[in-house]
Amino acid sequence: MKLHVEAAQLFDELQRLGEISDAPAPAVTRIVFSETDLRARAFVKGLCLEANLEIREDAVGNTFVRWPGSDPSAPAIGTGSHMDALPHAGRYDGTVGVLGGLEAIRTLQRSGFRPRRSLELLVLTAEEPTRFGVGCLGSRLLAGALNASADEHLKDKDGATLRELRSKAGFSGDLSTIALPRNHYAAFLELHIEQGPLLERDGIPLGVVTAIAAPAALRLTIEGQGGHAGAVLMPDRHDAFLAACEIALAAESAAKSSGAIDAVATAGICDIFPGAINSIPSRVRLELDIRDIDESRRNAVLSQIDQACRAAEESRGVRIAKEILNADGPATCDPALVETLARACETHGLPYRRMVSRAYHDSLFLSRIAPTAMLFIPCRAGVSHRPDEYASPEDIGRGVLILAEAMAELAS
Amino acid sequence: MKLHVEAAQLFDELQRLGEISDAPAPAVTRIVFSETDLRARAFVKGLCLEANLEIREDAVGNTFVRWPGSDPSAPAIGTGSHMDALPHAGRYDGTVGVLGGLEAIRTLQRSGFRPRRSLELLVLTAEEPTRFGVGCLGSRLLAGALNASADEHLKDKDGATLRELRSKAGFSGDLSTIALPRNHYAAFLELHIEQGPLLERDGIPLGVVTAIAAPAALRLTIEGQGGHAGAVLMPDRHDAFLAACEIALAAESAAKSSGAIDAVATAGICDIFPGAINSIPSRVRLELDIRDIDESRRNAVLSQIDQACRAAEESRGVRIAKEILNADGPATCDPALVETLARACETHGLPYRRMVSRAYHDSLFLSRIAPTAMLFIPCRAGVSHRPDEYASPEDIGRGVLILAEAMAELAS
Repeated sequence: MKLHVEAAQLFDELQRLGEISDAPAPAVTRIVFSETDLRARAFVKGLCLEANLEIREDAVGNTFVRWPGSDPSAPAIGTGSHMDALPHAGRYDGTVGVLGGLEAIRTLQRSGFRPRRSLELLVLTAEEPTRFGVGCLGSRLLAGALNASADEHLKDKDGATLRELRSKAGFSGDLSTIALPRNHYAAFLELHIEQGPLLERDGIPLGVVTAIAAPAALRLTIEGQGGHAGAVLMPDRHDAFLAACEIALAAESAAKSSGAIDAVATAGICDIFPGAINSIPSRVRLELDIRDIDESRRNAVLSQIDQACRAAEESRGVRIAKEILNADGPATCDPALVETLARACETHGLPYRRMVSRAYHDSLFLSRIAPTAMLFIPCRAGVSHRPDEYASPEDIGRGVLILAEAMAELAS
Repeated sequence: MKLHVEAAQLFDELQRLGEISDAPAPAVTRIVFSETDLRARAFVKGLCLEANLEIREDAVGNTFVRWPGSDPSAPAIGTGSHMDALPHAGRYDGTVGVLGGLEAIRTLQRSGFRPRRSLELLVLTAEEPTRFGVGCLGSRLLAGALNASADEHLKDKDGATLRELRSKAGFSGDLSTIALPRNHYAAFLELHIEQGPLLERDGIPLGVVTAIAAPAALRLTIEGQGGHAGAVLMPDRHDAFLAACEIALAAESAAKSSGAIDAVATAGICDIFPGAINSIPSRVRLELDIRDIDESRRNAVLSQIDQACRAAEESRGVRIAKEILNADGPATCDPALVETLARACETHGLPYRRMVSRAYHDSLFLSRIAPTAMLFIPCRAGVSHRPDEYASPEDIGRGVLILAEAMAELAS
């Protein structure tokens, strides 16, 4: 079977999708259920319809795009990713797995291949935690990892609930209808940029992912005492922001001293109330992201952050409330699928490396309901979540080729 | 001359003004040139017209409310303060000097007093730095301490210029017309809550201010490198927020170790870009407020902050740009006016204390163009810039009584 990937066309489609953004080009901001998100969905669905694929959307907007196989009742072969983008992010995170997944299917269509199992592109809603504070919303629901009460308790910063926002975006129905049966997919493969520097640095075009790091996300609400910046003397202060500073620095120090290069900790959000130059911060919301491929080592970092909170409460007379936004376990990729991907690389004579993913992905949740693996391609300088994120048409094309090859083997 | 202050009515007017707010009661948010600010101005002007006073507004909205004296060309006796309020602040900061100044004039009207010099209530625009990042906007312009280019270079966070905003609020004309001649006021007296705990703690109803602390405000823009919170390893990071944390803590430490209780440093604003839980902060705007009654000691704190910036640049590979928003010198109150206020307290048998103001006030700039002094009254627990800011009707009434007494002496 001769596979020909239309890499230039795919790259052009990625650019057109990237231009559907709430930030000036080349930055991409595409928040779930925004008007921009809906325009991006329409663009991708248009491409899928041009390829004669069948489209179904579930109650949260997860989109299933199917090329029916000759045995349509057999569990399908899935591929896909997300296309929402963090504020001021780039054009390739997620989208390479969405449009690249579509191009893998089109490549197989062009080759004359006729699948026994159906092939299905899955476009997942809200992998990014931007709007609701929880990542992988769509895949969590597919995996049954969120119950229906999420509809009311997940809110955006303006207080709008998931129920309100999805319904306004045109996705109604009960959240409990979303979970997939365990026999829906025989296999799920996610193509993604590495979001790290290793493949590019070593000149290796493909990464076969064996495990996905365990992420944890915390929200700390620090209550101190406000007051006039000129009049309240230093010894009388209970400054919530300075407590946050100590905790953020302690998180960095805990990750650095974990003994493993894979432990990372980030304080990406720090909202100060009231937020005026001459008012002592009375309340701060600090959000931290902590990851490791080893769950117990990650939990050790979390416990050092707890210690820093208690120390700040003691020394500064503030009160700190902790909310665990998520603390998911790491995922191991399916060993047979890892071998399928490795074999596909060998078939095409392309070097690859087995590696772990330090970023998390929808595959973390897909792996709970289906044999799952991931395929990485290099991205320039390891940069991601930034406007200068970049993957070359050649690298993307190679990823799609291996994805198509593996899907063909699995669907036969 | 028998002076009778209508303290209950004044207190009621303060509450009605406090209800004109963009925050839920009892919090007050009243940003200059907002619709709420314009409603508050209309309320106060209505009270002034009821008292048969003459109103004039200048090009930035400073409002001059005059009771003409029998010698209208003689330099006037001024009193007044501001009525804008920081986000989520209280009902008494500034407003006690505005409505209390009006009540001092009404008290003298009721007493049958006929002034030789005109008495003038001055309501100053934007003492708070909220909108334009610079405090005492109106009084700075009156003192000629800002030139006309401020009209274009002062912008709010949405990029609207001072020129656009004042004109939309109905205040047009050239900024250069605002500066007052040095013979406009023979004396200026500002009544204000202490915004500190000393008077209440010691049970003293009045404070005669002898000097006003020297404030400095800095804006630091820290440029690091963003990236994916999962994928960029700790040693490869250039996290702008962690640099900000170190600098904020260094500012606290510099103020605490200055050797003087009067040195204070506050980081009240820290805006993170892009501001997502799983994105490493690439850029931070940190704003600091540093004060002391001793300018050289304050400058020593500033220089320790500079050192912390250089250390963070070195250790974290970030770049830090510093903008001095203001660094005004301290003001000394006019010794003769200090004696006038002290004498008025003695006349009425009220205890008073000579003290410095650690908060800054429009009087800092009025003192450049007129003999100036301030009169403090207690506020509960020293709290200010918070919704629970409070001064009692009795304390406010005593402040107005002394103000009226002093103005009568000066206007005779």
